[in-house]
Amino acid sequence: MKKDINDIASFAKRKGFVYPSSEIYGGYGGFYDYGPLGVELKNNIKNAWWKFFVQQREYIVGLDSSIIGHPMIWKASGHTDNFGDVIVKCEKCGAVYRGDHLIEDKLEIQADGMGPEQISKLIEEHNIKCEKCQGNLSKASDFNLMFTTEVGAAKHSNSTSYLRPETAQMIFTNFKLVYENARVKLPFGILQIGKAFRNEISPRNFLFRLREFEQMEIEFFMHPEKINDCPFYNQIKDIELNVLTEEMQKSNEEHKLMKIYELVEKGNIKSKWHAYFLAEVFRFFTSYGINAENLRLREHLKEELSHYSAGTFDFEYRFSFGWKEVHGMANRTDFDLSQHIKFSKKDLSVFDEETKKKVVPHVIEPSQGLDRAFLLFLYEAYAYDEKRQNYVLKLDSRLAPMKAGIFPLVNKPELIDLARNIFEELVQEFPVVYDKSGSIGRRYARQDEQGTPFCITVDFDGLENNTVTIRDRDTAEQKRINVAELRDALRKLINKELSFKDI
Amino acid sequence: MKKDINDIASFAKRKGFVYPSSEIYGGYGGFYDYGPLGVELKNNIKNAWWKFFVQQREYIVGLDSSIIGHPMIWKASGHTDNFGDVIVKCEKCGAVYRGDHLIEDKLEIQADGMGPEQISKLIEEHNIKCEKCQGNLSKASDFNLMFTTEVGAAKHSNSTSYLRPETAQMIFTNFKLVYENARVKLPFGILQIGKAFRNEISPRNFLFRLREFEQMEIEFFMHPEKINDCPFYNQIKDIELNVLTEEMQKSNEEHKLMKIYELVEKGNIKSKWHAYFLAEVFRFFTSYGINAENLRLREHLKEELSHYSAGTFDFEYRFSFGWKEVHGMANRTDFDLSQHIKFSKKDLSVFDEETKKKVVPHVIEPSQGLDRAFLLFLYEAYAYDEKRQNYVLKLDSRLAPMKAGIFPLVNKPELIDLARNIFEELVQEFPVVYDKSGSIGRRYARQDEQGTPFCITVDFDGLENNTVTIRDRDTAEQKRINVAELRDALRKLINKELSFKDI
Repeated sequence: MKKDINDIASFAKRKGFVYPSSEIYGGYGGFYDYGPLGVELKNNIKNAWWKFFVQQREYIVGLDSSIIGHPMIWKASGHTDNFGDVIVKCEKCGAVYRGDHLIEDKLEIQADGMGPEQISKLIEEHNIKCEKCQGNLSKASDFNLMFTTEVGAAKHSNSTSYLRPETAQMIFTNFKLVYENARVKLPFGILQIGKAFRNEISPRNFLFRLREFEQMEIEFFMHPEKINDCPFYNQIKDIELNVLTEEMQKSNEEHKLMKIYELVEKGNIKSKWHAYFLAEVFRFFTSYGINAENLRLREHLKEELSHYSAGTFDFEYRFSFGWKEVHGMANRTDFDLSQHIKFSKKDLSVFDEETKKKVVPHVIEPSQGLDRAFLLFLYEAYAYDEKRQNYVLKLDSRLAPMKAGIFPLVNKPELIDLARNIFEELVQEFPVVYDKSGSIGRRYARQDEQGTPFCITVDFDGLENNTVTIRDRDTAEQKRINVAELRDALRKLINKELSFKDI
Repeated sequence: MKKDINDIASFAKRKGFVYPSSEIYGGYGGFYDYGPLGVELKNNIKNAWWKFFVQQREYIVGLDSSIIGHPMIWKASGHTDNFGDVIVKCEKCGAVYRGDHLIEDKLEIQADGMGPEQISKLIEEHNIKCEKCQGNLSKASDFNLMFTTEVGAAKHSNSTSYLRPETAQMIFTNFKLVYENARVKLPFGILQIGKAFRNEISPRNFLFRLREFEQMEIEFFMHPEKINDCPFYNQIKDIELNVLTEEMQKSNEEHKLMKIYELVEKGNIKSKWHAYFLAEVFRFFTSYGINAENLRLREHLKEELSHYSAGTFDFEYRFSFGWKEVHGMANRTDFDLSQHIKFSKKDLSVFDEETKKKVVPHVIEPSQGLDRAFLLFLYEAYAYDEKRQNYVLKLDSRLAPMKAGIFPLVNKPELIDLARNIFEELVQEFPVVYDKSGSIGRRYARQDEQGTPFCITVDFDGLENNTVTIRDRDTAEQKRINVAELRDALRKLINKELSFKDI
């Protein structure tokens, strides 16, 4: 099935996953709202990421910092001075274009990273006009993507602040506080999930490029001389995945299957901790249902690297509109901590027991966009079942908004009584749905469309021996199960400690 | 024990619950960051609220909308025109004061709701000067509390927008979309948890008055002629709680114990649904460990009511700095939906099957500040144990950041092996801590201070018969339990399906 992003956006709206923000006022570009099912799926992705990276690792702790902080943070990080796109305005109608996109669209050449002068020159040379009114275009200029706001009622040197364009910096500013009271030693990580904002010139592709979005960023701090001392490396070094190295890109080759250790041995990945976290992110997505064939690891080209990065790898996903970044992981070295030391004049170094010296840690940054993860899971799960003649959303049971539908087979009091009792017990622990309206087939289809992994039906056979049927979403197979065992079985099914065939 | 808010702030920082934001740059007034333990507690409060109001009620669904939306939302809601405080500036040093607070501090009279003219007059009459430099004060003026920002690169009629000052309005703008696809009928509610922003003139009292905060708001939509048709009213009408009615405030009486039905019968509460949600919020807080004596329900005075409200009740908590609002619940009638109908020209009415008429629903709004709930739980739990000579944070087990500490009694390989195995199994399901450093007493104390409800110790006795000890935080009592039963028992203990004495 060809999956079109507009079809998915329309399905997402119809089923209550995602709505265009402010729709009654005509929408607001780059902003989306999550509906009743969407918020459940989004929260489940957050919780899964948190469980995978924080709960189950003693060396990663959580943080939740404010969106607005002291403006000096962004001076130190470099965002105040260099965080922008090049824009071009129409002198007649006022339309604004992102310079690189305009050049790419008109001249069909790669324009990523071009400066204002180069873009202005190309516009002049090729006599490019406004797409809307054919008016003349202004000289290209830098445009900072940070949203600005005024804090407090009195204007002063620090009253102009920003909505954070990334959650990362607040991890760096809190690094020493966490180090001092969370009983952690190098190497350790801090994970934060929260909103970030970028005033994109051209938000596009549904949830893919938003002005308001959510990030799940880890900053992992290591002794600068121990960036290869990863005790878990052997567990992951043989993992095989699609890879597109810098060299392959330069020689126009396709991605190919490689093992993690090959990338380390060839020197593409320069820290075994970096290799480890790339493998862990890959393991997260594949263990939650993403087909490994739809993922690839792409090395950033040297000219593409951010100012802070000594090496970046993206995970890209095969969307219908091309392979697109869904995760970025940079080696930020000590760039950020050093900048904050310089600007705050505070000592952010930590004492190393082994060498008895103070060091400024180096950093690997697994940075995950939550909305992109949401889009990825929704996109991958979206499937039309020809036989059933309806959509079946094949979400992992741990991510699915609702865990089970509970139905009386027909509208008879004795069936309804038992179904309600089962519902009341299960809802204490899981988000489940009770539904008695429509044919049983229609009710199954309704749950299939919203990705509910299991349906529990109370029928007359079951009344006699206190059993119900349980149906698996993906196979439509049904089994009979004792009501007394249902709650424990459902917990284990959802968490994959029990497989459906073993019921 | 006298609980001082500054002591609690300092404890919260030391233990990694809450840090002042941007501390390395000297802090940023009105902004706080949640540390490793704080984010766990905060997430547990969110999840508890969500479970209590969304998961366990078929008639309430969730939503998660963007912080920035179309500016017309705030024109319609009234926030663009009337959402502010009165401010006074010093003409000499530029200091800014909130007018009502200045009057209250200087003249010791109630100034809530006074307009700029009245405040200017009092300043002149009493010759009030700047507190900092004794300079002359300006005329008082209105100051809008919404943070403003520019969206997009081109300035146009809708490019100036706001950081939402409440999550409520995005529930109203999405009301019809949710109604159309979430399979709900009147009466039903929508709950949203998310950030909101108010540019407070004088943020104060730690987490109590912030510029960036989080709300958990429900908008409950009812047929305007059925605001008393609450099928659950009989379950809650006899609940007794501290109440301070408008009449009692006017005659300077103290609050007193009353039953919910008395407030309905006397006409203070004008909708049984309003009564029901007040009772449910009371039940939430008391069932999660807040002593009912520290809560009271206060009726808003008529002159204090917001422009949209036909009746508001606050829950107040007994802090050391006085009884302060921790929850507000207004009867918003059809004010907001009607305003959005007017400004968007969209039909936001719904069809009533019974009367075959379209109606614009009325709304009850249980509005909970998450940071205030956090402060409330932390404040209530904060206790010094004279006998143990350390703090014991008596958080409900469902809210506690970590659910159990797992310790080998001493540093012997066979104890460590079993303790690690237990840890590895439990951490699959619960956030738990493994700790082998320091005396066992010190390790208990460490967990007591961060509110961990249970500690599991592996000792030599247990090695022989595969048992461990489990210790209850509040009583320090210990019991012996079989390792094979530990995981199920811990789940039931945390969820209060099993009490410690019944192990």
